Amino acid sequence: MRDVAIIGIGQIPVGEHWDSSLRMLAAEAIQLSLEDAGIEQIDALYVGNAYGGTFSSQTHLGALIADYAGLSNVEAYTTEAAEASGAAALRTAYLAVASGAVETAAVVGVEKSTDMLANARVQARNVSLDADYESAHGATLTALAALLMRRYMYEYDVELSAFEGFSINAHANGGLNDYAMFKNSIKPGRFAKAPMIADPVSLFDNAPDADGAAAVIITSANRAIDMVPQPVRITGSAAATDTLTLHDRSDLLYLKAANISAHKAYARAGITAKEVNLFELHDAYTILSALTLEATGFAARGEGWKLAQSNVIGLKGSLPISTFGGLKARGNPVGATGIYQAVEACLQLRGKANANQVADATTALIQNLGGLGSTAIAHILQI
Amino acid sequence: MRDVAIIGIGQIPVGEHWDSSLRMLAAEAIQLSLEDAGIEQIDALYVGNAYGGTFSSQTHLGALIADYAGLSNVEAYTTEAAEASGAAALRTAYLAVASGAVETAAVVGVEKSTDMLANARVQARNVSLDADYESAHGATLTALAALLMRRYMYEYDVELSAFEGFSINAHANGGLNDYAMFKNSIKPGRFAKAPMIADPVSLFDNAPDADGAAAVIITSANRAIDMVPQPVRITGSAAATDTLTLHDRSDLLYLKAANISAHKAYARAGITAKEVNLFELHDAYTILSALTLEATGFAARGEGWKLAQSNVIGLKGSLPISTFGGLKARGNPVGATGIYQAVEACLQLRGKANANQVADATTALIQNLGGLGSTAIAHILQI
Repeated sequence: MRDVAIIGIGQIPVGEHWDSSLRMLAAEAIQLSLEDAGIEQIDALYVGNAYGGTFSSQTHLGALIADYAGLSNVEAYTTEAAEASGAAALRTAYLAVASGAVETAAVVGVEKSTDMLANARVQARNVSLDADYESAHGATLTALAALLMRRYMYEYDVELSAFEGFSINAHANGGLNDYAMFKNSIKPGRFAKAPMIADPVSLFDNAPDADGAAAVIITSANRAIDMVPQPVRITGSAAATDTLTLHDRSDLLYLKAANISAHKAYARAGITAKEVNLFELHDAYTILSALTLEATGFAARGEGWKLAQSNVIGLKGSLPISTFGGLKARGNPVGATGIYQAVEACLQLRGKANANQVADATTALIQNLGGLGSTAIAHILQI
Repeated sequence: MRDVAIIGIGQIPVGEHWDSSLRMLAAEAIQLSLEDAGIEQIDALYVGNAYGGTFSSQTHLGALIADYAGLSNVEAYTTEAAEASGAAALRTAYLAVASGAVETAAVVGVEKSTDMLANARVQARNVSLDADYESAHGATLTALAALLMRRYMYEYDVELSAFEGFSINAHANGGLNDYAMFKNSIKPGRFAKAPMIADPVSLFDNAPDADGAAAVIITSANRAIDMVPQPVRITGSAAATDTLTLHDRSDLLYLKAANISAHKAYARAGITAKEVNLFELHDAYTILSALTLEATGFAARGEGWKLAQSNVIGLKGSLPISTFGGLKARGNPVGATGIYQAVEACLQLRGKANANQVADATTALIQNLGGLGSTAIAHILQI
């Protein structure tokens, strides 16, 4: 099994791109990543996309985007695992290059959320819930996140305000990131008073749907050394699943797939959680941030929220998270999110994160979740 | 790069499964493949599915099916490349096992076409065409296949009846296959008189949408030898793309992706087309059969149709194709089709094809196309 490294990164600003279609967003990110790697052709393109079929009436994105991006005839197809679709594409590319079958691969995550208005989008996103047992009964991902959060608050006797630190941190970091959707800061005390979307999940808790595309170029670590000055090695990669529905879980407040994927990735990289310098986690909801920190070895059960009370998760803390704003402030272009995480981690490890820089970062954990932890895919990036 | 082999296969009858949902079909095929391999657990599950989002309002199938099939917490996600989604899943599993990252993987292809009625299904399938330049203007895959066929007939001065041999062969073989959707034979002369769907593509030309699921279990070739009496080695695997739209192709009658993927697969297996004993090709339309035979080295350009005039493509011919009925008669459960091809090739190589047996088959080519050759994924299977 060959070692694998990232040699190029590209991203476009996350937000509402009314004048661009899905293929245009993807091609732009790919072009930026190729320029960054200093190459013009690749052997394979793996596309992470969750809702092309229901948002944009467009699937078969491998062939479409390969052609539109000028990558004629390359191997190309799409991976889908709901919100973890981007990381699934990165995982596929990693396996392809690690196996030796593919020399150089591009991975693009892309989503065009503004192809439909917000109300229709809720329905279009519901395809990744359980059609028979969840969405058919009116559930939405946010409503289910609210159930999870309510249970957490009850079990651990935690107030709503306990979660505000996650959103304050995300927006503080997003404000420094030119590619972030939201640049505004959230003042302490505002979080618990924000308009409710699905009580207790509020407007300041829920990551926004967005348009976006991000891409990385990967090749074998041996080739990478000769190609670019700062290759970022993918030293760990792992995926795991949990039940699709919350009601099937034996332990509601434990993200088992997040636990398994992170610890498998640590093991492959030969590290422990202690050696992680920054963590791009899947903060689609603050409850996911708290539960993720507990599942991945950074907090005891019931205590993930406490990391948001101090400066631990800030850029100067001991475990910076969502360093470019996370899903909450950078925005959540669903199938692209996992690749934005990879791009941001690479910027940190290269020391090119500017105002968002985490000092002396050499090891990053990125983890992309599908649903409320039904899929979890983790990668360790090191320089 | 490790050698890879198939150690278990499973399929359910192709047809209209009104009493089963998508997850039930998939779990049944997986269970059959696990029983065939004599194992109960695997490390990863790759799902090939094209239209879960638009047929069944259900994506995120990795987590859903893993859980429903009792494969708790395994790595799982979906691959999509329109009609080639099944082969994309097989390719992903192949890369995962070849790399050494995954020991044993299940691959399931599944589609539940009867979740919607035929008219709505045309619309739901159109998401894999170009949304801006094809489907928005009323095109369908069958209408585009008709344009391609018309052009072929014009360029090479061929009559409609020239294609009938492909459908006659498919139905003759399907009639022997317990898992096939159509068991009826097509009498010589009937093909060109069949009701038109999109002139010149007729009812006897167009493969039917269907429900279905098929699965294979793969592991390293070294482990496989100790696990089952007849492991089938995957000695070649390759994917390529062409433009999504016909109007972007410089050469309309040349399936470039089919050519590249087949020849890359031959090269990896160290064989030539001459050594192929049977070919499960993507006969969604007879024009695709003709063009595929030309692209993959079995006929000169403009002469693919001639193979259907003789007994060449029959079970006792020199190049048997669609040996269990192909897409035309076995049926086309879209995302599952590529895995049905793999299962059928394994049955042939194991000598367990019963009435459909091709004598002394040791090398099979399988090729799954997305759209009209926009994606092509080929595998060489050998025993």
